[in-house]
Amino acid sequence: MLREAIYHRPKNNWSYAYDRETIHIRVRTKRDDVVKVTLIHGDKYSWSVIGSQKIDMNVISRDHLFDYWHAEVKPTFRRLKYGFKFQSANDTIWLNEQGFHESEPENQNLYFDFPFLNPADVFTPPSWVKDAIFYQIFPERFANGDPSIDPEDAEPWGGEPKPHNFFGGDLQGIIDHLDYLTELGVNAIYFNPLFEAPTNHKYDTIDYLKIDPHFGTNEKMKELVEACHSRGIKVLLDAVFNHSGGRFPPFLDVKENGAESRYADWFHVREFPLEVRDRVPTYDTFAFEAHMPKLNTENAEVQQYLLEVARYWIEEIGVDGWRLDVANEVDHRFWRKFRDVVKAANPEAYILGEIWHDSQPWLAGDQFDAVMNYPLTDAILDYAVKETRDGRQFADLVGYLHAAYPQQAAEVAFNLLGSHDTPRLLTICGEDKRRMKLATVIQFTLSGTPCVYYGDEVGLTGEHDPGCRKCMEWDESKQDRDLFRFFAELIKLRKDHRALRDGTYELLYSESGIQAVAFAREYDCEKFFIALNAGNVDATVVVAAGKASSYEVVFGEAQVDSTGTKVQVALPPVGFAILRAN
Amino acid sequence: MLREAIYHRPKNNWSYAYDRETIHIRVRTKRDDVVKVTLIHGDKYSWSVIGSQKIDMNVISRDHLFDYWHAEVKPTFRRLKYGFKFQSANDTIWLNEQGFHESEPENQNLYFDFPFLNPADVFTPPSWVKDAIFYQIFPERFANGDPSIDPEDAEPWGGEPKPHNFFGGDLQGIIDHLDYLTELGVNAIYFNPLFEAPTNHKYDTIDYLKIDPHFGTNEKMKELVEACHSRGIKVLLDAVFNHSGGRFPPFLDVKENGAESRYADWFHVREFPLEVRDRVPTYDTFAFEAHMPKLNTENAEVQQYLLEVARYWIEEIGVDGWRLDVANEVDHRFWRKFRDVVKAANPEAYILGEIWHDSQPWLAGDQFDAVMNYPLTDAILDYAVKETRDGRQFADLVGYLHAAYPQQAAEVAFNLLGSHDTPRLLTICGEDKRRMKLATVIQFTLSGTPCVYYGDEVGLTGEHDPGCRKCMEWDESKQDRDLFRFFAELIKLRKDHRALRDGTYELLYSESGIQAVAFAREYDCEKFFIALNAGNVDATVVVAAGKASSYEVVFGEAQVDSTGTKVQVALPPVGFAILRAN
Repeated sequence: MLREAIYHRPKNNWSYAYDRETIHIRVRTKRDDVVKVTLIHGDKYSWSVIGSQKIDMNVISRDHLFDYWHAEVKPTFRRLKYGFKFQSANDTIWLNEQGFHESEPENQNLYFDFPFLNPADVFTPPSWVKDAIFYQIFPERFANGDPSIDPEDAEPWGGEPKPHNFFGGDLQGIIDHLDYLTELGVNAIYFNPLFEAPTNHKYDTIDYLKIDPHFGTNEKMKELVEACHSRGIKVLLDAVFNHSGGRFPPFLDVKENGAESRYADWFHVREFPLEVRDRVPTYDTFAFEAHMPKLNTENAEVQQYLLEVARYWIEEIGVDGWRLDVANEVDHRFWRKFRDVVKAANPEAYILGEIWHDSQPWLAGDQFDAVMNYPLTDAILDYAVKETRDGRQFADLVGYLHAAYPQQAAEVAFNLLGSHDTPRLLTICGEDKRRMKLATVIQFTLSGTPCVYYGDEVGLTGEHDPGCRKCMEWDESKQDRDLFRFFAELIKLRKDHRALRDGTYELLYSESGIQAVAFAREYDCEKFFIALNAGNVDATVVVAAGKASSYEVVFGEAQVDSTGTKVQVALPPVGFAILRAN
Repeated sequence: MLREAIYHRPKNNWSYAYDRETIHIRVRTKRDDVVKVTLIHGDKYSWSVIGSQKIDMNVISRDHLFDYWHAEVKPTFRRLKYGFKFQSANDTIWLNEQGFHESEPENQNLYFDFPFLNPADVFTPPSWVKDAIFYQIFPERFANGDPSIDPEDAEPWGGEPKPHNFFGGDLQGIIDHLDYLTELGVNAIYFNPLFEAPTNHKYDTIDYLKIDPHFGTNEKMKELVEACHSRGIKVLLDAVFNHSGGRFPPFLDVKENGAESRYADWFHVREFPLEVRDRVPTYDTFAFEAHMPKLNTENAEVQQYLLEVARYWIEEIGVDGWRLDVANEVDHRFWRKFRDVVKAANPEAYILGEIWHDSQPWLAGDQFDAVMNYPLTDAILDYAVKETRDGRQFADLVGYLHAAYPQQAAEVAFNLLGSHDTPRLLTICGEDKRRMKLATVIQFTLSGTPCVYYGDEVGLTGEHDPGCRKCMEWDESKQDRDLFRFFAELIKLRKDHRALRDGTYELLYSESGIQAVAFAREYDCEKFFIALNAGNVDATVVVAAGKASSYEVVFGEAQVDSTGTKVQVALPPVGFAILRAN
């Protein structure tokens, strides 16, 4: 047994409370090295009297190098002492906090400790997020419903998007098209910034408490939120709290008055006056953007201001949560206070961080509910679109991500295939709709919350910003209606079947050098097989039939041949099928 | 190269801010497997323009299975992207967030990310703790200075300690013996609980805002604190916030009025009425102790009450910090608020958690400054006293602990060899003073804050509670004065030389099956060698001489033979020597 591969350290994704009575324990071993892992556990204060219990652990996922084992325990007194027994063909070892042992350790004090399951520390994302299907709207480019408030230099709808031009999208336009979103089937909207700001993307806020006048008013926003809620659609706003805009009044004051400004401590000034030397501002900024000065979120006044913003839009306007821009560059202390304020305003509010990297430190229950799951984006695009990752490599990364976070975090991961910060999905696919559909089927059949970037569903194309920020196409004759139907059907399928949203995930097939993959999602009596072929030739996957007597292709295209114990699924090139086991 | 052994995941002990400008990066490899590790780093927003830098990493410690590599960076803009290059005799691989690569990854987006060094998140223990030498006092048994406030049934000083008897120790007794502590040389006292409580140990508080009347008054406590401060002695109190005592008025109210009590939510009641069934209380307790009901630290009133306690004793009475009893069974949210209140009252206050296990989740800067370092206690006693761990096994565990936490946490670990919760050190040593001294020399020459349990320094003995809670011996003719001198000299040596407190640690010698160990501590121009022999026969260790021209035994006993490039240190059985390199 390879001892160097075995890893467990309490907390994080290795031991955590799943809910108020359940503790999850996980451990890692070298892939295919260990046959059986047993969790030995007991209550630390009665172990010596009552002794320990033993339960088998299960492999919940695998990656390139490791197997990840998992078990759950509901300890009567909410305390858990535990250790592990590992068995391979010719070796048995035990692990406790002091390391490896050749026989079962007797001293219970040296086992690992989950000291107490305190409800205050349980990570509990809002329950609705598991069932949400998001639609991302870049407001300036979705629909122009009120030309009277267009920017002066607004161009005709549908022109070429440029870094600094405007087309007049606004809140009324969104209200006017809610029927469209209902037809598509989405039940949540993530809005790019809506607050007053000079640019078309509005990531350079002037006033965090005011809807941009070219979008509408705060009252109009309230009307929009109410119209969404009456259709069962949640609303998520973009909180750009890492930095303000260059025209944010406190920043202008510091620019003018330097160290004398009463706002001097609202920013991270390295040296007065505020200016740009050799392309580097004398104050901290987002990247090196002089007009995006980093806010000093340690300053009590800044905290008070931003926390009031967080409260206002939830309590007064009714929005359902926040997406946090550049979330990982803001201090953890601020985000903990932010969570307290947001959850006090609405315990079911959703907090989504923009983090492109490993996000474990933000997903322990004290800060965010979820992050934008770009690592999964990479995995899907590499496999389904770019063909730089074979089926095994794709499944390995999905397996890694599955085990890398507490289960409740994996359940609500925000899964996107593109955004205002990336080229359009169809463009990444070289306008090959088959690959776009394949990628989207994966997005909609894995755990987490899928998000559709506006217009992807009708075939909008576009390179990286500004190309990906085209005006929405409202002329049905110019929309790709086949694609729209594909999205609407896939969304309906996911909404109709909890197994696809929230079921267990089991990898059924993946091999090095092979582009076909199959996995299962199961919840209660309902089970689905998802078969994928990213290759350019036909492929067949064979999986164990299990208890079902028949298999029905409910989405996609495949020849299914069931022999009793096995199910053979023949897929066309760049094909997919969702099968329901009956 | 063994890829399964290589571990890095951002944050915790692997990437953290050491101070407001320095980031530490660490990575683990299989022991003796990798020859060179290079840290590749740059600024994420200028990497593509300016490119990356490369620095060598150093092995800071080793354990049974792994080498731990370390590097520090002071990034201009407080942001760091980074990855690793590993080289062995016949292999070179790179690691970024996406895994291992056979060539240097080009896409900087996929490197690891330390997003921003926010000062608010920097873990900064009080600076005085590195220099502190603690003395633990169990107040009922240290000195009786005011017989007029003795408990009614107090027994004559020096009698046999029993679970429930009293001897009349009090605050005046401590004040009367501060000269003694100054002579010994300690500069900080950790007091077991002082607040009103029925037992002799007082871990079952009645009133958290009142000194127990048998110990004195709050005014007397203030006098004691001021007397300590005037001698340069800090004062640490015991905060028993996990549970109250059975006679705590709110608990009595719930006992009487059940669910109707206005304090019903102050505790964790599983079922009313409060009673004990089959030896298990119907409410959560410390262990299964009916008279130690667990406080509901999620309740806002309980928080307010306990946080006022935390503030009162620091602001009004002047104490220098808190030792937190059963700290790991209280929720993290409460401890974060506790830290805010304590540090607001005194930014240099010290927060020490009682945790016997791995304590990483509490040592990230948002909760505790240090924990009671029982894993090191085990390592020292196993090696120096029980002989169940050879020199290599001892050094491996020290190495593991060294790398298991951020450096600032390791610097202020609270290192103890015994307490009111363990048998006395001399008793554990089978009354072999040589082994007691050997263990104590290790305690005083490693990083962290050593603590002497009252009376150990004059030869007190005693088994586990109640034996370890004997009355202090004040009759000098009955004190072990040789032991006292040993402690006083060792304390002086540590206080005189920063290298012994705060210097770098370098393991010089350890071998499987050999009981001798040698390590160095170095700070600025000062360097010490510490040579240890836990075996029952003579032992010789040979270490590289380095730059020094001579070696002087400044403590302990050894024959030193210096040949220019090597220093040979011959130690007697169960011996030790501290050598200064000149």
